[in-house]
Amino acid sequence: MKRFNENKIIKNILENSKLKTDSKYPANLDIIKGIGDDAAYWKDDKFAYCTSTDSLVENVHFKLNYFTPTELGKKSIAVNLSDIAAMGATPLGMLISLGITKSQDEEWINEFYKGVFELSESYNSPVLGGDLVYSSNLFISITCFGYRELKINGNKDVFMDRSKLQEDDLLYVTGYLGDSKAGLEILNSDLDLNVESTHHKELIRNHIYKSPRVEAGLKLLNNGVKNCIDISDGLLIDAKRLASASKVDINIIEDSLPISNSLKLVFPDDYKKYALIGGEDYELLFSAPKSKKDILVNIFANLNVNLSVIGEICKGEGEIFVDGNLSEITGWDHFDFVL
Amino acid sequence: MKRFNENKIIKNILENSKLKTDSKYPANLDIIKGIGDDAAYWKDDKFAYCTSTDSLVENVHFKLNYFTPTELGKKSIAVNLSDIAAMGATPLGMLISLGITKSQDEEWINEFYKGVFELSESYNSPVLGGDLVYSSNLFISITCFGYRELKINGNKDVFMDRSKLQEDDLLYVTGYLGDSKAGLEILNSDLDLNVESTHHKELIRNHIYKSPRVEAGLKLLNNGVKNCIDISDGLLIDAKRLASASKVDINIIEDSLPISNSLKLVFPDDYKKYALIGGEDYELLFSAPKSKKDILVNIFANLNVNLSVIGEICKGEGEIFVDGNLSEITGWDHFDFVL
Repeated sequence: MKRFNENKIIKNILENSKLKTDSKYPANLDIIKGIGDDAAYWKDDKFAYCTSTDSLVENVHFKLNYFTPTELGKKSIAVNLSDIAAMGATPLGMLISLGITKSQDEEWINEFYKGVFELSESYNSPVLGGDLVYSSNLFISITCFGYRELKINGNKDVFMDRSKLQEDDLLYVTGYLGDSKAGLEILNSDLDLNVESTHHKELIRNHIYKSPRVEAGLKLLNNGVKNCIDISDGLLIDAKRLASASKVDINIIEDSLPISNSLKLVFPDDYKKYALIGGEDYELLFSAPKSKKDILVNIFANLNVNLSVIGEICKGEGEIFVDGNLSEITGWDHFDFVL
Repeated sequence: MKRFNENKIIKNILENSKLKTDSKYPANLDIIKGIGDDAAYWKDDKFAYCTSTDSLVENVHFKLNYFTPTELGKKSIAVNLSDIAAMGATPLGMLISLGITKSQDEEWINEFYKGVFELSESYNSPVLGGDLVYSSNLFISITCFGYRELKINGNKDVFMDRSKLQEDDLLYVTGYLGDSKAGLEILNSDLDLNVESTHHKELIRNHIYKSPRVEAGLKLLNNGVKNCIDISDGLLIDAKRLASASKVDINIIEDSLPISNSLKLVFPDDYKKYALIGGEDYELLFSAPKSKKDILVNIFANLNVNLSVIGEICKGEGEIFVDGNLSEITGWDHFDFVL
C-alpha cells in the first residue's frame, strides 16, 4: 500500500478552503469550529451541536477473519462515540453509510446492525439514517452527532477541543495504553489462540472492543476541563495533535504510562512501545491545571475508571518530549507524520 | 455484481431498531424523524436541523475515465445538496470521508477538493471536517447538514418529507427528465465524442453535473408545499417512495413528462423510458393542492426553472400508475425493488 502524508494533504485542503465562519448564517446560529479539527461544532441560542465522521475500511482498519459482523458493528459505533466523548458532548444520534461487497449477504448485514443497535441504544445515540451501497471492498462510514445544552449565552467554549492546553497543566490519560495494538499483533500472528493464556485473550478483547468514554468526557467538560482528544492513532501522535493545536510542548514520563498486567506479561520487552505508539486505545488524553487534580481523581474513582498523570505541559511550540528527550512522532506503521 | 434488495434490508434494519424518538433528550430537543426516510431531522426551540448521507463508489456510481477529479468533487457535493434541497432546508455545512486508493496522489486529491470547494462555497455549505482513509476502491461518503429557523414553536412540520401527499394534489417535477442517464449511456458507448453533436454533449453534461435545486426547495417549503423528494433512482422508483410513505396512489401522465430536445433527438425511440426510469436527474418531485398551481407557476417562472404538472394523487395504498395502468416499479438496472 502506498503511503501518503495525510497531514500535508489536510494542510493543502485547509489552504484551498475559503471557509468563512462569519458569513451567511442567521445572527443566532454560529459555526464555531470547522475543518482542521476532528469535529465540527455549531450552536444556536439553546444548544451547541458537534459532529464527526470516521470511516473503517476492510483490510486497512479491520479484517473479517477476526471480527464477527456483530463485533464490527459494535466497534464502528464505539470508534465514533469516542470522538463524541472527547468533545464532552452528549450523543444525539448517527448516520451510517455501509458499502457492502458480494461477500456480505442479508444475514451478514443483519448481524452487523445487531452490533450497531446494541451499542447505539446503550449510549442513547440512535441510528437516524444512512445509506447502503455496493463497493468492491467493505467500508463503514459513520457520522455521529452530539449536543450540549447551553447555560450561558455567548459562551463559545462549548465543547472540549485540542487547542486549550496551558503551561503547567498536568497531562492525564484514562484507562490503560497499548492493549489494543498488542491484541491486533496477536490476532495477526500464528499463535494458536485456543491454547493461549487469558492475558492474550484480554489483549485481543481490547482490540475488538473498547467502551467509548462518553460519561468520562461529559464529567470532564462539566468540571471545567477544556481540552481533550481520544487516542486513536497512538499516544505520541495524538499528544502531538494536542501540543500543535495549543502551541505548547508536552513532556511525557515514560514510567508513569498505565500498562496492564496482560500487556506486561505477554510483551515484557515491548510494552512501553505499545503504550507510546500502539493506537486504537480510544482512551481520553487531556490536560488540566494542577489545582484540579483532587477533583479529577475523585471523579474517576466514582466512575471506576483508571486515571493516570503521565506528564506535564511546558512552554513551547508543539513538540513532544519523553523523559525530557525530544521524541520523534511516529505511529506503529511509520506513516509519514507532519502536523 | 450480486444484486440485493436494499429495501428489504432496510425493512429488516427498521425492525431491529428500537429507536424511541421520545426517550432521553432534554425537553426542548426533539428528534423529529429518524431512520426510514432519507434524512434525519431534529429541532430545538430556535432551529430545526436535518442531515443526510450519500456515498459514491468508483465503478458503481461513477468511472474515473469520464470524471475529472474536480468534476467528481462537484458532483459529490451536488448529489448531497440535492437531498438538502428536497427537504427545503438551508445548507449549513458538510463532512467528507474520502477513501483513496494507490491511484490517487496529492494532486488528484487537491483537484477533487477544488471541485468540492467550488460548489460548497457557492451554496454557502462549508466543508466542516472529514476523514481521509486508504481503501482498495475509491469512495466518497458525504454527510450534509441543513437548517431552518423556526418561526412557530411547536410546529413539527419543519421540513418537507415523503409522507404528506394528499388525494387530489397535482404531481409536479422540476427541470427535464432522463438526460443524465442518457448521457451516461453515451459515455459508456463506443461513440467518438469528438464528432458527436452538441445534443450528445448536452446529455453528457447533464450526467456529469446537475445544479442542486436548493433555492427551489426553499421556495417550495416557504410556500406551504409539504412533501418532496429528489429524483436519484428514477421517476418511478422515487414516485413510489412518495406514494408508499403517504399511502396514496399516483397516476403519471406519460405525455406530460418534460423531455429535453436533446434527449428526443438522440434517443427518438427510447426517450420516454429514460424519463420514467433513468435516474440521477436530481430534480424535485412533489405534490401540492390544485389551489397552489398559480403560485407555483409564478415561483418557478421567477426562478427560471422549468416546472411541469406530470400527474395527480389518488386514493390508494401506494401504487404508481402510468396513464391509468398499474406500473411495475423498476429502475434502469432492474434491481429488485420492494418498499
